[in-house]
Amino acid sequence: MLTSNTTALRPHQDPADIPHDDMANALRALAMDAVEQAKSGHPGMPMGMADVATALFARFVTLDPGRPDWPDRDRFILSAGHGSMLLYGINHLLGYADMGIDQLKRFRQLGAITAGHPEHGHTLGVETTTGPLGQGLATAVGMALAERMLNARFGDELVDHHTYVIAGDGCLMEGISHEAIDLAGHLKLGKLIVLWDDNGISIDGRTTLSTSTDQLARFRAAGWDVMRVDGHAHHALVDAIAEARSTERPTLIACRTTIGFGAPTKAGTEAVHGAPLGAAEIEGARARLGWNHPPFEVPEGVRTAWAGIAERGRHAREAWEKRLAASGQRAAFEAAMEGELPADFDEKLAAYKRELAESAPKVATRKASEMALGVINAATDLTVGGSADLTHSNLTYTKGLVPVAPGAYGGRYLHYGIREHAMAAVMNGLALHRGSIPYGGTFLVFSDYAKGAMRLSALMGQRVVYVLTHDSIGLGEDGPTHQPVEHLAMLRATPNLYVFRPADAVETLEAWQLALHAEGTPSVLALSRQNLPTFRTTHSEENLTGYGGYVVRKPRRRRDVTLIATGSEVELAFKAADLLAERDVDAAVVSLPCWELFERQSADYRRAVLGTAPRVGIEAAGRLGWDRWIGERGRFVGMEGFGASAPAGDLYQHFNITPEAVVDATCDLLTCA
Amino acid sequence: MLTSNTTALRPHQDPADIPHDDMANALRALAMDAVEQAKSGHPGMPMGMADVATALFARFVTLDPGRPDWPDRDRFILSAGHGSMLLYGINHLLGYADMGIDQLKRFRQLGAITAGHPEHGHTLGVETTTGPLGQGLATAVGMALAERMLNARFGDELVDHHTYVIAGDGCLMEGISHEAIDLAGHLKLGKLIVLWDDNGISIDGRTTLSTSTDQLARFRAAGWDVMRVDGHAHHALVDAIAEARSTERPTLIACRTTIGFGAPTKAGTEAVHGAPLGAAEIEGARARLGWNHPPFEVPEGVRTAWAGIAERGRHAREAWEKRLAASGQRAAFEAAMEGELPADFDEKLAAYKRELAESAPKVATRKASEMALGVINAATDLTVGGSADLTHSNLTYTKGLVPVAPGAYGGRYLHYGIREHAMAAVMNGLALHRGSIPYGGTFLVFSDYAKGAMRLSALMGQRVVYVLTHDSIGLGEDGPTHQPVEHLAMLRATPNLYVFRPADAVETLEAWQLALHAEGTPSVLALSRQNLPTFRTTHSEENLTGYGGYVVRKPRRRRDVTLIATGSEVELAFKAADLLAERDVDAAVVSLPCWELFERQSADYRRAVLGTAPRVGIEAAGRLGWDRWIGERGRFVGMEGFGASAPAGDLYQHFNITPEAVVDATCDLLTCA
Repeated sequence: MLTSNTTALRPHQDPADIPHDDMANALRALAMDAVEQAKSGHPGMPMGMADVATALFARFVTLDPGRPDWPDRDRFILSAGHGSMLLYGINHLLGYADMGIDQLKRFRQLGAITAGHPEHGHTLGVETTTGPLGQGLATAVGMALAERMLNARFGDELVDHHTYVIAGDGCLMEGISHEAIDLAGHLKLGKLIVLWDDNGISIDGRTTLSTSTDQLARFRAAGWDVMRVDGHAHHALVDAIAEARSTERPTLIACRTTIGFGAPTKAGTEAVHGAPLGAAEIEGARARLGWNHPPFEVPEGVRTAWAGIAERGRHAREAWEKRLAASGQRAAFEAAMEGELPADFDEKLAAYKRELAESAPKVATRKASEMALGVINAATDLTVGGSADLTHSNLTYTKGLVPVAPGAYGGRYLHYGIREHAMAAVMNGLALHRGSIPYGGTFLVFSDYAKGAMRLSALMGQRVVYVLTHDSIGLGEDGPTHQPVEHLAMLRATPNLYVFRPADAVETLEAWQLALHAEGTPSVLALSRQNLPTFRTTHSEENLTGYGGYVVRKPRRRRDVTLIATGSEVELAFKAADLLAERDVDAAVVSLPCWELFERQSADYRRAVLGTAPRVGIEAAGRLGWDRWIGERGRFVGMEGFGASAPAGDLYQHFNITPEAVVDATCDLLTCA
Repeated sequence: MLTSNTTALRPHQDPADIPHDDMANALRALAMDAVEQAKSGHPGMPMGMADVATALFARFVTLDPGRPDWPDRDRFILSAGHGSMLLYGINHLLGYADMGIDQLKRFRQLGAITAGHPEHGHTLGVETTTGPLGQGLATAVGMALAERMLNARFGDELVDHHTYVIAGDGCLMEGISHEAIDLAGHLKLGKLIVLWDDNGISIDGRTTLSTSTDQLARFRAAGWDVMRVDGHAHHALVDAIAEARSTERPTLIACRTTIGFGAPTKAGTEAVHGAPLGAAEIEGARARLGWNHPPFEVPEGVRTAWAGIAERGRHAREAWEKRLAASGQRAAFEAAMEGELPADFDEKLAAYKRELAESAPKVATRKASEMALGVINAATDLTVGGSADLTHSNLTYTKGLVPVAPGAYGGRYLHYGIREHAMAAVMNGLALHRGSIPYGGTFLVFSDYAKGAMRLSALMGQRVVYVLTHDSIGLGEDGPTHQPVEHLAMLRATPNLYVFRPADAVETLEAWQLALHAEGTPSVLALSRQNLPTFRTTHSEENLTGYGGYVVRKPRRRRDVTLIATGSEVELAFKAADLLAERDVDAAVVSLPCWELFERQSADYRRAVLGTAPRVGIEAAGRLGWDRWIGERGRFVGMEGFGASAPAGDLYQHFNITPEAVVDATCDLLTCA
């Protein structure tokens, strides 16, 4: 029973006491009014999906606007983030404290919480930042997974909620959706319900311009239950959602809607997608919808109906609080949700660091990371590991970790499959849900595939750790397709992201410690495939990597030159310093494992570390960004283009990233003996 | 009829005169020998897919190793690029001039053409660089599309070939595969045939660890024909491929194979995927396969059989040459394949540039790009435009361009859908196939989604133009999810990629001209949403953007300070220069639209442009990379973190990227009146 006809103005007349039409029309009116006032925004989606959202919230979504962080709330994700006014309208009517009508009037204005796309952390009740299409859907998979994993640990009493997603055509066309739905179907995340705004319109016009895919068949192939429903038929929607909640597989509900429902001339066309309707069209829509209220005004009855949803949520939350108080697992549950590392965590790491300084292992930093994770995963149960099908290369697995499997969510390791983008988004979902600290591995070069979601880790300030191994031409034979050259720069350029490139086992442990403590910042650990000696053979209580950069080898008497390196090239700097000593040049070696943290030190500290002598930067990567450290007189020894396929040693020679090249660069700057 | 049992050693006994088993075993032996000799590589896939490859080549693939660039050859794409030895083995046996047995013996060594993953341009007969999973499949979609588009223009006589892909589980799990197969299914690319190495094994173990997807149902949902076949049954494979060639939709053939077929203990396990087999296993494999020849030796009969394939191709090519010679379209066809711009192309652009200097339009550079494209698309028929569903935002469409549609390939515009990654890969495929110059649009921030394929544009040196609009906080209200901050750095860090950020309509035209002439380098045009004045009001015959950077406003008498900016911030630098003049500070303004080209100028030229006066860099993006131009004493006016949602003007004020901020930065460096 489809009503795609745009003249079918009155959506389903709900006989129940909830005035469904009015509740939905309030969302439509707020969206068109706010977009009109802002002179920019997207009215089409909120107007088209208002009925779906009303059916979903009126009957099903359980949350408490007074306690937006209640752990067992349902998660509602607006993956089609351009329809932000739908969410802001809902949150306004539900009574979130920050979402007064003034905020709707200041939609998309500086200082308002009503950003163009919903931003987690900026606005209450926004579970994740959306806008880049497909991200919300994939992040929701992580949240639904977190729910099951916590449920496995704490039971139905404390953890039993749904994850609802509104997704658009764009979300389903983006590649990340494939990775996400495959993983969700495989893991049988039955409490994940996706409501697809199937309006047949994208920005360029009808979706038939660019797709012929049978989405229901596609989701079914991925192990989902699927349904199709008239997105303007209240009862049918309620029935569909109720059915979706009852199955053991995730569900896609295709909601056939009219974009911009109610707009007299623009509904059902791309004209209503992303621009204000204009005064005449809004007037026409008001008339057609029977919404005779001034802009931004919502009658009391409608407000009361929406407030009832919040009230229902408050009761549920209070009942849950009682269950929590009575639960023997309270402390463990709260510790998990707070994500605090155990009190003796740092002590255990310090003891292990002392061991490392003494044993001075010569291992690849990916191996050092595995060793560190052995200690970390034993010291806290917060960590949840995984890899995008490179477990034995990334060395992300440690003994005793049980993999999560379909229907068996008690484990702490995730086989993400060959899905770097979804891995990053799922980790965002795990972190946002709270209850764990996710880390996941792939090769550094494949951060290309994950970048869209990594950016959101940074923008949302989530504690997610990216274990990115094979971090340079040092990976050798796999060749230029697998050798990162520009990726350190790409990641360093991203705000609020720690990019650690540790030089040895001690720095690797320190980087892990910093990453796990960085509650508001995701981290990248760029790790070598090839073995590296341990330089930090004198134990330091202090986390020197926390300074971002420091003098790892002091000059013997005076400082003639400062060699600055990261990761595997610190070894090379040491060797160059030895060679220079033979030529009576006294070199300091600076390790610079985390530029972001180094930037944060005082100018005096930085000056002291970098010194006033000429400087040579060394990194088996592109130069971009290095001029900051080496200055105008400085030299750089690194990559100038893409890599090549050959054993690592041959490549370092071939690309002239050698101790001798560093000596030559130095002797260009100084007089060498 | 599946023979997934690993002890079933003898694949199908072919009764025909082609010794199928021996042809396939030659590929297996070469792969295991080369990997063993290299002490690294991936034997499992070549051994598992040797039967499939043999069936495909023996009966179907038409190409001429003596003329690897014959335009009407079939395209064979090894999307599972880690199985490179399969391709090198084939190319060796087919007789490619560069692929002597010495190259197989030097697999993965420095200077050899047998790189770890197949590299286009490095090795004959490698149609595209693969290794990053899914890329080959998506690029093949572009090639199959190119075939249809050229066929529409030149007919079956000149253009009538197939695109064959071997893809692995990883290719099908990656998100890009979704975008690619949806587009291929939608466009009904019936001559695209994908052979899936369905071996049930990925690096972490059985694929059931991470996926439950019914791939056949999935491809069917996307509009493909699908088949399942025993990947070791020669006749069944031949029948399947023959059937696939006869249909009007693209076809997926799921080939059930045993990874590492023949290896006595490791076949069918992940142990055979990515490591040498070891001497004992190889000996056992030789015995089981009945291959009693020393390493790297192939008996004459087998060589003759493979050479017959090449011979068949040569005849086909010669027949085609005759058709071409007799064709009235010869000149037009050759011009298209050579990709040469018309002789009067630059003249037309110069005339338009003169107009621009005179009319000095105040338009966004995205609009300037649209205006330039109006001239360009009229001056050459090589360009093929498109957008990832942002046509009216990217302004990539020009009047008269007909969109390509399913079954109707005569157009020059592509509705790529909301598929940035596939768009980039498809453009690579169009460029690699030859016959057009593809350009495609999205927002700059969504280069995140496309980066994996953009990197390959650069690595392969393909003339692909990325029209990336909405290039800063200047996009305004859409907020930080849509505001690029790190993307210019990410792209500038990528080798062999021109990143143009033009400041006005003249620079935009110049950037287009350079991009279209850059036959071995892809280009990014980073374009503003907001209007900008034209500075270049004096016509210059010379393409000043081609210098990468130049003084766009000279100081009046002396140069007290140099303001260096790109794109929309050049306007701001002009305003700051005016303000500084009031304070008796004489500023030069340098426009730096393309760092890569500026780097390429002589040191003297660069010194002259940058000057010796203190410098201030201005860009509404992160600082990373700018220290190269502003030096240690320099200041930078730009972004320090993510953006925000508000009107553009408010954001520039909020983030303090203003003429006043530039004046302040300058007066920090100098004494201002």
